[in-house]
Amino acid sequence: MSDYQRPLRLAMVGGGKDAFIGAVHRHAAALDGRYELVAGALSSTPERSKASAAALGLPPERSYSTWEELLAGEKGREDGAEVISIVTPNHMHFPVALAAVQAGFHVICDKPLVHTLAQAQELQAAAEQAQSVFAVTYNYSGYPLVRQAREMVRGGQLGEIRKVIAEYHQGWLAAGSEGKQADWRTDPARSGPAGALGDIGTHAEQLISFVTGLEMEAVAADLTHFVAGRALDDDANMLLRFEGGAKGMLSVSQIEIGRENDLRLSVFGTKGSLSWRQEDPNVLIYDQLDAPRQLLTRGGPGLGAAATAATRLPAGHPEAFIEAFANIYSDVADDIWARQRGENIETLYPTLQDGVQGVAFVEKVLESAGMDGRWAKF
Amino acid sequence: MSDYQRPLRLAMVGGGKDAFIGAVHRHAAALDGRYELVAGALSSTPERSKASAAALGLPPERSYSTWEELLAGEKGREDGAEVISIVTPNHMHFPVALAAVQAGFHVICDKPLVHTLAQAQELQAAAEQAQSVFAVTYNYSGYPLVRQAREMVRGGQLGEIRKVIAEYHQGWLAAGSEGKQADWRTDPARSGPAGALGDIGTHAEQLISFVTGLEMEAVAADLTHFVAGRALDDDANMLLRFEGGAKGMLSVSQIEIGRENDLRLSVFGTKGSLSWRQEDPNVLIYDQLDAPRQLLTRGGPGLGAAATAATRLPAGHPEAFIEAFANIYSDVADDIWARQRGENIETLYPTLQDGVQGVAFVEKVLESAGMDGRWAKF
Amino acid sequence: MSDYQRPLRLAMVGGGKDAFIGAVHRHAAALDGRYELVAGALSSTPERSKASAAALGLPPERSYSTWEELLAGEKGREDGAEVISIVTPNHMHFPVALAAVQAGFHVICDKPLVHTLAQAQELQAAAEQAQSVFAVTYNYSGYPLVRQAREMVRGGQLGEIRKVIAEYHQGWLAAGSEGKQADWRTDPARSGPAGALGDIGTHAEQLISFVTGLEMEAVAADLTHFVAGRALDDDANMLLRFEGGAKGMLSVSQIEIGRENDLRLSVFGTKGSLSWRQEDPNVLIYDQLDAPRQLLTRGGPGLGAAATAATRLPAGHPEAFIEAFANIYSDVADDIWARQRGENIETLYPTLQDGVQGVAFVEKVLESAGMDGRWAKF
Amino acid sequence: MSDYQRPLRLAMVGGGKDAFIGAVHRHAAALDGRYELVAGALSSTPERSKASAAALGLPPERSYSTWEELLAGEKGREDGAEVISIVTPNHMHFPVALAAVQAGFHVICDKPLVHTLAQAQELQAAAEQAQSVFAVTYNYSGYPLVRQAREMVRGGQLGEIRKVIAEYHQGWLAAGSEGKQADWRTDPARSGPAGALGDIGTHAEQLISFVTGLEMEAVAADLTHFVAGRALDDDANMLLRFEGGAKGMLSVSQIEIGRENDLRLSVFGTKGSLSWRQEDPNVLIYDQLDAPRQLLTRGGPGLGAAATAATRLPAGHPEAFIEAFANIYSDVADDIWARQRGENIETLYPTLQDGVQGVAFVEKVLESAGMDGRWAKF
Repeated sequence: MSDYQRPLRLAMVGGGKDAFIGAVHRHAAALDGRYELVAGALSSTPERSKASAAALGLPPERSYSTWEELLAGEKGREDGAEVISIVTPNHMHFPVALAAVQAGFHVICDKPLVHTLAQAQELQAAAEQAQSVFAVTYNYSGYPLVRQAREMVRGGQLGEIRKVIAEYHQGWLAAGSEGKQADWRTDPARSGPAGALGDIGTHAEQLISFVTGLEMEAVAADLTHFVAGRALDDDANMLLRFEGGAKGMLSVSQIEIGRENDLRLSVFGTKGSLSWRQEDPNVLIYDQLDAPRQLLTRGGPGLGAAATAATRLPAGHPEAFIEAFANIYSDVADDIWARQRGENIETLYPTLQDGVQGVAFVEKVLESAGMDGRWAKF
Repeated sequence: MSDYQRPLRLAMVGGGKDAFIGAVHRHAAALDGRYELVAGALSSTPERSKASAAALGLPPERSYSTWEELLAGEKGREDGAEVISIVTPNHMHFPVALAAVQAGFHVICDKPLVHTLAQAQELQAAAEQAQSVFAVTYNYSGYPLVRQAREMVRGGQLGEIRKVIAEYHQGWLAAGSEGKQADWRTDPARSGPAGALGDIGTHAEQLISFVTGLEMEAVAADLTHFVAGRALDDDANMLLRFEGGAKGMLSVSQIEIGRENDLRLSVFGTKGSLSWRQEDPNVLIYDQLDAPRQLLTRGGPGLGAAATAATRLPAGHPEAFIEAFANIYSDVADDIWARQRGENIETLYPTLQDGVQGVAFVEKVLESAGMDGRWAKF
Repeated sequence: MSDYQRPLRLAMVGGGKDAFIGAVHRHAAALDGRYELVAGALSSTPERSKASAAALGLPPERSYSTWEELLAGEKGREDGAEVISIVTPNHMHFPVALAAVQAGFHVICDKPLVHTLAQAQELQAAAEQAQSVFAVTYNYSGYPLVRQAREMVRGGQLGEIRKVIAEYHQGWLAAGSEGKQADWRTDPARSGPAGALGDIGTHAEQLISFVTGLEMEAVAADLTHFVAGRALDDDANMLLRFEGGAKGMLSVSQIEIGRENDLRLSVFGTKGSLSWRQEDPNVLIYDQLDAPRQLLTRGGPGLGAAATAATRLPAGHPEAFIEAFANIYSDVADDIWARQRGENIETLYPTLQDGVQGVAFVEKVLESAGMDGRWAKF
Repeated sequence: MSDYQRPLRLAMVGGGKDAFIGAVHRHAAALDGRYELVAGALSSTPERSKASAAALGLPPERSYSTWEELLAGEKGREDGAEVISIVTPNHMHFPVALAAVQAGFHVICDKPLVHTLAQAQELQAAAEQAQSVFAVTYNYSGYPLVRQAREMVRGGQLGEIRKVIAEYHQGWLAAGSEGKQADWRTDPARSGPAGALGDIGTHAEQLISFVTGLEMEAVAADLTHFVAGRALDDDANMLLRFEGGAKGMLSVSQIEIGRENDLRLSVFGTKGSLSWRQEDPNVLIYDQLDAPRQLLTRGGPGLGAAATAATRLPAGHPEAFIEAFANIYSDVADDIWARQRGENIETLYPTLQDGVQGVAFVEKVLESAGMDGRWAKF
């Protein structure tokens, strides 16, 4: 319980009724009391935007019909929003985010960032110029034990990294008739050039990068759309090569029946290894050469500073998806507050740089797929 | 996303700096946006109360030195608190809760409710007279799959219940030098007549009751304090008999090194069984006679109305302790709002009746222990 | 691979067609090549004995109609059996074992040993006089990691033992119509005075004793037969007190639907704890005060001499029930060979003393149950 | 318990002292009593062969110095061996197996079969001409639940197969100083052209084929030797394409610290999926579209004929590596006995055809690796 800070004023673009991820962002913003939702342009039509805003108790004058109105309206208020959360389908990320940073807002944007690397770089330039705080919600990097893994790997506890296995298994798009959440994700116009690869593959890519700091050197990919009539990949299998000689595998699917949200990461070095699963997020498996396996638990003995800072509850009182997501929001607030005080602090939340890297990754994977799986070099 | 309701105004007694459970209550109240924390008497000394209130951003005029001042001050305001959360050490539950209901507040009180059955019954009478909503935070009954278990058991899916095994394993009091959280829990003046039994045994007892609806008929208990100099039990093992012939075991400990917060419940009937573990709360194991084991997952296929209503995220996106705790807070808000509309709704949150039953349970266990483990009849 | 020893000549009483446990004994005897099955009186009728013997390839002259003939016949041969395995229903253990030791055979007898303590003691006296090797197949003590647990507990790695939790959960007798294997187990004339308690409770009791060396001081028991018309307990719940102040719980059931053969042991001391599950036998969970959990694996790093000696395969190549059972048979062979060489070796196989203790345990549990659960003192 | 058959006379080439896999073969042969070990040429030098044979109790006249002497000696005896087990380092498989089938013996040979496809085909032709039974000990296909998976997949329970993920994770070669077992496996002259790929990758490949019946169409591979100075791959990552459009991933490593013998297979179809892990072999995870996960257990409800036939013990009494290995040996005996009776029976043991396919697989993987990972077509 540090010193009190006034909660940041948050406006949301997208995330209206029935949008799962909008509710997640609101829970994440609410959990630690660092944000106050003050405005929204919550849906793609004015009527639905208004209805969603009313259901959330937003005052009518701050319930906007379009995101353009929202940015203009909030910019014009003394008590206007300071942070814009963008939780629309992917194709809207670029115009909204660009306009938001150009208007001087801080931004929290869902992933994948944008459709093309050119857009990503334009956005990055604009954000730098505006000195906006810009987070991309690669939320899995908010899990305390993911941060513990990062601290251990980067601190050399595993020795030199040899191999990384990242997996993201889902099955909810196996049948081809999954409703609204599925619709836009399988539509190239709204989802971008990648399906499962963009939607969840980028999470896995960011997780590798966040934990290991390894730079990808090349990727060899095999992309498939198993469901008839689907325009985008629903399954993507990749071999990875990293600078320095480490190797990797990355398996992504949304047609694996029975898999819920099974994101996994294993990192193997010359001295030890770590394994983590999102569906059992309070345990980090730690193996050392010729020693019994250790289970590091969130809140338990043996954890470092990063995990401890990201932890709310004692060991055995599980924290999960929303808490990890809230860690991103809390980190962003810390950063904004620090800047308001004229300070620079170290932060762990995923930034525009992660977002740019994710877009570049998707492009390279598609390039490899376009060459029938030959190595595409970064 | 139902119709908007103004958040309820919440005041908190206890739960200041370093009080783990106070922060949990605040997270739980914040998560769904149904409460606004407006006032507090957060610690046992005025100085620490003020400091904690400032850190939470409470306005000075609503940062009270004592709970008596808080009740008086909030009662006197037009915009005064509507709900009082009591998160003090156990011995303060009774006076604060009694005064709060007598003053017309709704109450959310931590468990175990009070020290004696006489107090419990006095409190119950007062709350009934005041028509206060009164919840006791047996928070584990907020887990979606615990509610699923209840629905299945009470709907007859297991047949007639034969056996119940409840376990609550912790190890954090094994060494005898655990600091502030441990201090009051091992002090009879503040904790009441029971140690581990009251602190966590009552959770297990309520879980049995919540899920099965079985009435305890008798208990045979063996209580121990293993750590030298400890005045209260840190380990309690019990045999149970229920009305109608079901049998049970209840094992409670805070000296089992390596156990974090390992609450478990298994219920066995003539047609099937269910098992649930708090540390893996998104899975409910379901066995039927002569059929393969099924794993029911939160958000997954095969769940009933109660679990679905208590769920925020899709399957595979784990929910955990805070979300379950927040379900209690949300249920209480629903009930208060319904009463404000003059309606009666069915609710699942633990009530004063659960609290009374927990106190009665502790008394019976102590009675059995005092008879060297003979059956104490309810 | 030590020096070659001629395999011991083994005769079997009971264990004919359809007798699950007879086949287990034969697999266990065969696995390490230390026994040669030479004779049998395999069933309760001459016809079925002959048929079973033929199916096993026993020569007609060593396929006996009754156990009496078998003992007489084998005793009279130059190349007669040296070891008698008794794998009959419980009520036959006493007469066969007594006659066998009196005739100078070594004996491997199934558990529970006999029906009464008086029988057990008579048998013990006879075996001592005959200097027979006498093993009782408490086979779970043959698991390498159970022996590892024993070595750690007895070596003081857990400090002073405070609490023991033993559980043996089965569900196969839940419905009351389970066929031949169930028939004799629920018939007092053949099974003895206890049902689940004798059949599997004694395994749990022996496991506690084997691992911890603790002496039971008293037991408080609640026994139930849930299935209508059943004469013996199918569920037994017990509180335990040990010499020196340790406490325990022991839960035994054969009506827990969904439980297969779920024997578990947890031992908690002042410095650490251990947990083991028969259905996942290649892992031993080891917790130390304020240190991350360790998973000790069979064949893996950190194991002591006892586990290593009982291990055939490298880590990750699981060993299981038959291998553990075979460890008992191999230990017995080692002991017999040592005696043949005039040597005394340390052994870990369960002996007549374990068998006697199991019978005493059953009697005490029944005594407590007869006093409505009051403590029965050993 | 079917009709008695005289045990087959077995001779062993290789598998002397300290050879882990030789002991495994002997346990597997002994477990069900279908073989009698009668002769051996157990090591690469006469002295060590003799010593090993003596330790096993083989008569001196059947303890051969070389495999050539063994084949000649046993062929010349009335009571000579009928089956030759070849458990040497890989490079000896071809000459011994070829000579054995040409001499009219049945053969059980370790994997990978031989070094080149040409050898494999020559061997296959010879075995066909000799009408020898020839098994290759892809032992993991002996696990009951692997056979259950095969039966379900081939019976259409998963619908059309879309994706297969096979993994074989080991860590024992991570450090580069592992002793004799490692020595020959990392020596191209004795191990053949592949390291981890040949040693364990072929197991994974056979498991895919055994369960799914899918034909590989192409493989894209990235092979690495991480340990300095190692001549063969110790890590191999592959993308797979199957006839008909299914995709796959295959990850093989012996440098993943902490992984013991972690072979896994997941198969995803249009109607459901199955997952199995060798280290937890008594459970098969079965998911169906929109239904709760089921856990099929060996010996439990819901299993088909193949699993039941391969099962010795009731559910909850785990079977493991040796039992699965013994299933291969037992199947081979059944086949030999059937042929002796002039019958043809259906069998599941891996044959020379599996061995040939494994060699072809290794060659294709090496071909792809030689093309920097381009797809090598079968």
